Amino acid sequence: MTTAIAPMASTYETPSAHLDKPTAADLVGPALKRVEFVIHDLPDVEPDGLRQAVEVILNSGGKRIRPTIALLVACMLGDTPPGSNAVHLAGAVEMLHTATLVHDDLIDGSLMRRGAATLNAAWTPAATVLTGDFLFAYAAKLASQANSVEAMSIFADTLCVMVAGELRQGFSDWETRGTHDDYIRRIYAKTASMFVLATTAMATVCGASPRQTEALREFGREFGMGFQIIDDVLDFTGEQRVVGKPVGSDLRRGLITLPTLRYAELNGSDPDLACALRGECDRPTYDRLIDRIRHSAAIEAARHEASAAGERAIQALHVFPESPYRAALIGLVEEYAQRVI
Amino acid sequence: MTTAIAPMASTYETPSAHLDKPTAADLVGPALKRVEFVIHDLPDVEPDGLRQAVEVILNSGGKRIRPTIALLVACMLGDTPPGSNAVHLAGAVEMLHTATLVHDDLIDGSLMRRGAATLNAAWTPAATVLTGDFLFAYAAKLASQANSVEAMSIFADTLCVMVAGELRQGFSDWETRGTHDDYIRRIYAKTASMFVLATTAMATVCGASPRQTEALREFGREFGMGFQIIDDVLDFTGEQRVVGKPVGSDLRRGLITLPTLRYAELNGSDPDLACALRGECDRPTYDRLIDRIRHSAAIEAARHEASAAGERAIQALHVFPESPYRAALIGLVEEYAQRVI
Repeated sequence: MTTAIAPMASTYETPSAHLDKPTAADLVGPALKRVEFVIHDLPDVEPDGLRQAVEVILNSGGKRIRPTIALLVACMLGDTPPGSNAVHLAGAVEMLHTATLVHDDLIDGSLMRRGAATLNAAWTPAATVLTGDFLFAYAAKLASQANSVEAMSIFADTLCVMVAGELRQGFSDWETRGTHDDYIRRIYAKTASMFVLATTAMATVCGASPRQTEALREFGREFGMGFQIIDDVLDFTGEQRVVGKPVGSDLRRGLITLPTLRYAELNGSDPDLACALRGECDRPTYDRLIDRIRHSAAIEAARHEASAAGERAIQALHVFPESPYRAALIGLVEEYAQRVI
Repeated sequence: MTTAIAPMASTYETPSAHLDKPTAADLVGPALKRVEFVIHDLPDVEPDGLRQAVEVILNSGGKRIRPTIALLVACMLGDTPPGSNAVHLAGAVEMLHTATLVHDDLIDGSLMRRGAATLNAAWTPAATVLTGDFLFAYAAKLASQANSVEAMSIFADTLCVMVAGELRQGFSDWETRGTHDDYIRRIYAKTASMFVLATTAMATVCGASPRQTEALREFGREFGMGFQIIDDVLDFTGEQRVVGKPVGSDLRRGLITLPTLRYAELNGSDPDLACALRGECDRPTYDRLIDRIRHSAAIEAARHEASAAGERAIQALHVFPESPYRAALIGLVEEYAQRVI
């Protein structure tokens, strides 16, 4: 179902200077609008407070990276413009992501996300748990509207992996948390698994071959890993104003991410590090240590690892013929998994 | 696919005196064992603490009433003995029920259930939220293994209804909570919706006709309503030792159920009642009021309502020809929605 027609976006937007290399927004902008429609088309949500809260969460500035990937994959597999099944699946992935944010905020005790107060800061834990449950339920509903038992099964498996990963983190001791293996497993469960859901469930919905599906799994995993590593780097190097949370917030709440792991390899004898790994520092010690990490070679080492993952993601796409969709997926990797600011 | 072969249970159990009228246990005992197998066949659950907690919850004395209904419906529709799709769907329903218990306990702040300490009493809220999420995820996984997009869709819809119902309850004010309409909506969302899931999703899996499906929807709804009303009556009349929680515990935590509503109609001027409806009583006042309710005509009035719902459930089954499975479903209604102790 490949087509010679120009990308749909061009009929909606003014011709841009880069029509020779259309961006993801050019290619799947209209389909993303349909995704917005289905994720806001909530079933009978009666307490007005709930509907308002859900709207706030859905509109709080997410970049819709996951549904964008899903839709580009659909197009690359010939579902152009993406049909109803693909649009609902893309919506399910974004909704699942949103649901996990709500419960994560509760679990972390976070009070800010994307610079805005989290639901957790304003509501009782009970209301937050239930709102997260509602979003999970609605995500499952959207996934079922992709009309594929296999996609539904991948969706449920992903949810199991994500939750088990969170629980493992909650139960693990300080020793385990400070290893590279643990970090890799954790960010797979937390982030990459959902990228894999976006790519492989869409592969199923669009009837991809086993070889294409495996390539898309690899693409999703490596893109997701690179994406999360960069996120973890930005937690150290970003400004609170931009990132929307205090610098070094992960380490402050006991989460050991790649920059800290690489710093530990390079500066094993730093006494502040030992106390941070045990989770027993006072605030000035954290301030000092975070400042040292953000100005150390650990940052570059972590970026390098993200970049390598991004490179593997791009390589995985080579089983697909050249197309604007493939190019846009590569562009997303370069933008998110290999970004330097 | 009806068969003249004796019910499977008879090959597993010693012949009983009531073979002319086999019970649910006789008819679907072996299939229930398969359900136990699939609900205990958890995916890679790594923190041992989690696996142990989940096992405790799954083994804490539930009567498996929901999967029993689902399996009897499958048999009544000719899926005898129930196939893999039916067994997985029955497992999904029980797992969904279990997941809601975990989050409910957290939301209610309950420390006891079925006479045993709840997860909530022993764990942090974060671990409890995640364990509930894990059980939701596994329920979705089992539902997907029923291999029916339509059943999956009913499953997701039910989850939406249940969570929206809980949220509505959390957001509603005292005025609304004290009405019969609100009570009916609440117990539909909380209990009857899952009975409807058990019957209608199974109808889909087993290829029931629209007329059969509607009859099963009616059966599930009325059975569920009667079941919950009796549960609410027992909260007043039961002994703590048997019910596993303090007498009148619903009212003590601000939950207005049918006995209280009927008592209010009969004794509107009771001053203790007014303060209880505002949720502002001290403990001796609750003790006094609960004692008056449990010895009032409100109890019999509530039982009568449960019995009428049970009668409607039984009537709904009349579109099906007589069979041991239909008889066993009627027996369950008599046992659970029309029980007097």
